[in-house]
This record gives sequence, C-alpha cells and structure tokens, in this order.
Amino acid sequence: MKIGLDAMGGDFAPNAVVSGAILAQKELSAEDQIVLFGKEDLIRQIIDAKGASADLFQIVNATEVIDMHDKPIKALSSKKDSSLAVGFEYLKQHKIDTFASAGSTGAMVAGAMFSVGVMEGVLRPCLASLIPKDKGGVTVLVDVGVVPDAKPDVMCQFGLLGSNYAKTALGIDNPKVGLINIGEEDEKGNQQSQAALALMKEEKSYNFVGNVEPIEIFQSNVDVIVCDGFVGNLLLKHTEAFARIFAKRGLVDDYVKRFNYEIYGGLPLLGVNEVVIIGHGISNEKAIKSMVLQSKSIYNSHITEKLREALTT
Amino acid sequence: MKIGLDAMGGDFAPNAVVSGAILAQKELSAEDQIVLFGKEDLIRQIIDAKGASADLFQIVNATEVIDMHDKPIKALSSKKDSSLAVGFEYLKQHKIDTFASAGSTGAMVAGAMFSVGVMEGVLRPCLASLIPKDKGGVTVLVDVGVVPDAKPDVMCQFGLLGSNYAKTALGIDNPKVGLINIGEEDEKGNQQSQAALALMKEEKSYNFVGNVEPIEIFQSNVDVIVCDGFVGNLLLKHTEAFARIFAKRGLVDDYVKRFNYEIYGGLPLLGVNEVVIIGHGISNEKAIKSMVLQSKSIYNSHITEKLREALTT
Repeated sequence: MKIGLDAMGGDFAPNAVVSGAILAQKELSAEDQIVLFGKEDLIRQIIDAKGASADLFQIVNATEVIDMHDKPIKALSSKKDSSLAVGFEYLKQHKIDTFASAGSTGAMVAGAMFSVGVMEGVLRPCLASLIPKDKGGVTVLVDVGVVPDAKPDVMCQFGLLGSNYAKTALGIDNPKVGLINIGEEDEKGNQQSQAALALMKEEKSYNFVGNVEPIEIFQSNVDVIVCDGFVGNLLLKHTEAFARIFAKRGLVDDYVKRFNYEIYGGLPLLGVNEVVIIGHGISNEKAIKSMVLQSKSIYNSHITEKLREALTT
Repeated sequence: MKIGLDAMGGDFAPNAVVSGAILAQKELSAEDQIVLFGKEDLIRQIIDAKGASADLFQIVNATEVIDMHDKPIKALSSKKDSSLAVGFEYLKQHKIDTFASAGSTGAMVAGAMFSVGVMEGVLRPCLASLIPKDKGGVTVLVDVGVVPDAKPDVMCQFGLLGSNYAKTALGIDNPKVGLINIGEEDEKGNQQSQAALALMKEEKSYNFVGNVEPIEIFQSNVDVIVCDGFVGNLLLKHTEAFARIFAKRGLVDDYVKRFNYEIYGGLPLLGVNEVVIIGHGISNEKAIKSMVLQSKSIYNSHITEKLREALTT
C-alpha cells in the first residue's frame, strides 16, 4: 500500500517527519511505500543527512506550506501547491491509500472534506482520541475537536462512528458507548447533553449505556465516550496536561507512560471517504513513526468500508 | 460567630458531619459556636459516643432530610422541617452567620436562592472550586456546577465573582482572569465561548487576560478561570478522578496530596446574600472540619460586602 505523509506538517517538520518516516519504513513490508509530500530538496537533504536511501520513498514535490496561522479553507484554495493540498489530491485520485499530517487540524479537516468528501449519511466527521484505561486497554473519546458546537443528532451519530472505530480498528466486540455528563441520571447536564441523551437512548445501531462521568474515561465500564468537539478537546488537553505534569514530577509508572501521545500516532478522522490521520502538532520522529504504522493498520482494518456498511443498514 | 452546619447532608451523615464538627470546634475561638441542624437525638448520640460535650454546640432539631434523590425545589417546599430548610431559615433570620452542607448541591443552591436570595445585580450565582497549581497556590475555577447552560453575559459575570473571591478570600492582588478554551486565539472555541470572550474583553471590572487552555489550570499564569457549569463540573470531576487514580497507584508527592478535597472544605456559592458553602458528597470528618473552618475564614474575609460593593461600582 501507499502511505501518504505530509512532510511539512507539525512544529518540527520537515526534520521530525522525514526522520519518523525513515524509522517507520524499516518496519513496513516490501509492498508498502511511504509517499512524502513537501519540498523535495529539503526532504532529500534530510534523508541524506540521516544516511538513508531516498529510493525507498516516493517523494512528491510541493512548494508551499500551510501553517498554523493560515485560515484553513482560504489556505487550501490559495496554496494549491502546498504539501497538504497536493497530498489530498493524491488521496482523492487513489494514488495513495491513506494520508497523515501533524499540521493544522483545521486545514486537515477542511482538506479531507473538500477532496475525498464526507461519507454518505454522515452529518459531520469527528476526531477520535484514545485515552489509556487504568486496568489496560483504551477509551475512544469522540469528538475531540472537529465540531465544537455539535447538535444532538450529530453527537448521536458520533456514537456510531466511535463504536465502529472501536469494533473495527481496535477489535472491541459490541463496544459500550456512553455520553459524557456531570452525573449519571437522565436529567443531569446541559440542554445539549439532555437532547443528545434522548436520541441516543433510542438509537439501535450501537450499544448505548447512558450518561457517564469523567472517571469512566479511565475505567473499564465503557469503550467509547461521546462528547462535542469543545468538551472533548478540553478533556483531551486536560488529560495531556495533567499527565505531563505528573511525568515532569517523576511520578511515572507503566500507566503514566501510556499517556505519552508518541505511542498512539495520530487521531483518525472518522466519517470521511478515505483514511485520514491527524497527528499532534508537537510530533517528534517517534510519534510520526507511530502515525505511519497506524495509517497502515487502520487501512487494513477496512474501517471505511465497514463504516459505509454500518451507515446504510 | 455562629457557623451553621447541616448535620444530615452528605453520604456519611450524620456521623461524619458531627464528628467533623467536634474536630473543628477544638480549633475555633470561644466566641464561635457551631450550630448543628438535624435530628437532635441522633446528633446527641454521636456527640456522646465521641465523648464530646453537647453543650459546646447549639443543636436545632429538624426532623426531615432532603436526600440526593429528591427534586431540589419540590423537596424544599414539601420538607419544611428538613435540616436544610431550617438551616436556611436561620441564615435568613441572621440566627447563624454562615451555612454549610455536604448534601445535595441542587437543594443547597435552590435553598440559598429562595431564602437569603441572589445579590442585587447578580445574574446567576456560581460555585467556585480551588485547583492546586504545580508551583504552589491555587486556581479558582468558576462555575463548577450551578449553571450548565450559562449565557455569555452570565459567564462574563462569573469572572467578576471569581475575581472578587480570589482577591477577598484568597488575598490575590489584581487576579488575572482567563476564559477556558481549546486554544488561545480569539476565533477558537464554540459559539458560547466566542460570545463570552467578546464581552469579557470589554469588561473593565476585572483583569481579563483572554482565552486559556486547560494546562493553565495547573500553571501560574492566571488566578481565575471561567467556564460554564457543565464544562467546569466536568473538568473538576476529571481532575479528581485523575488525581485519585494516581494516588491509588502510589504515585504521590506533595503536589498530588494537595488534590485531596478534604483539605479545601467545600465550594463557596458566590453571588448570594450570605456565606453558603457546599461540601463534597463524600465528605468525611476531616473534610467537614475543613468546611467549618473555611466558613469562618470566608465570613471574616467580608466577601459578601465586598462583592456587593464591586457590583455597584
């Protein structure tokens, strides 16, 4: 397969990205190839400096870069030769099978929607994050950043997207889906969560178990937790911040180590027509390597096809 | 002063409450008295069993109890002889100077609003929580549970309430107030946070510093962080859950110890006409003791008078 990677995306690009690609390449099969999008001369320089062979990669020259300060939609149309725009064009034309970047989340979401498009039947795509559970395994948190003002029907469908991701990519049988709330009782929460709860209780396409409090993110009672993109992103950032502070204080054990984003790669964008993965802006080479390997495993889980099936039944 | 305490509120009431009151009484001055509201015979039994003297307390008999399953407003009107309803009547009549309970948050908020009432000029009262900072000190998080659907003007005023609490009760000079968000840029967030930001940027009554990400809760750049009651309660619960998991795993240092709710007492309800404090439902005797001592120190900070001044200037 062809694994597309935006060489110019992320705070430490292109160095960390190309270095991560070199690491990942060593763990891929002969039939897999990483396709790097970005400034070809720069990419070749880094590969050379690392003593690796450029022949192992496909390099697609793209002269522009979309950075964090660019307005996503405007940048995509004005910077047509950016690594991100060219990468998505390749994805659309099936010249690559997956596309990943540690660049601007907004530009990645917009790029995916405008190129490969949103899956039929999907109201809004969402980003899924994996949070390690205390007793092993992970919780899928959806959405963590695409839709800050998710309507109740959108939140209800996040349950379906997250449930199918947990089933397909993580191999969890009949995933238990909860709705984040400040209490377990039905009448708790804000208007949005109460309306979403009412819809989710009627939903037959996944195994909904009701409201769950934040502690359940770390426990083993549910597999998928639904929230809007505002709350989800806050909880994700809060988790990262807290874990980082503990680690900095030397309070580290096997569990705390699992909060290291490097081992998870990136966040899959669920509900678009191809496999698109968005990495952490601070991705180092280890994180990029994980994201490349994750691209392959998610692609091989056939999540896109399975989600399409789930949406039409 | 007279410190009112609901002996029947909380998961371990009345035992933990009365035991906590006995501990607190030893640290109060001779002119201070704890006034216990609840089933007098039960309260006297516990005092006797602890080998303490009932003469040190004022006990106000109240035969009913409002529990977590009661609908707050209905319970307050139907259970007129509940410890909570009687306690608030005493507060209203100035027979006590402060009132605290580890019982139902909803009933406490409703009880305060219907008895002593909301301060003139206050749109909605809010609950303030203290989160320990990594380098020492605390962050005031407002609101953590009263208004899950706070409108932008309400959120803007939470900044004033929280800022005055930080100044008056915590002695922080010119507190820096931030708005919780998923990014620091003005255009980040949901519609609610964007609208609140616009109002807060124009606000002259406190020192607003802009959007802040969750990591700032633990850092020293801001003193007060504003959020709506839904997000605030989630972040508070998430913090408690995370800290508890770390502690359970033996990952404890001086900082983690400061996350123990027992040492903070309860959450002051800001924006009502008297000092009202709501304790954690799981309060043990140590937490109750903290809440009694906190009642005294908050009362002595003259926060009610100072807030009233701040609201009229």
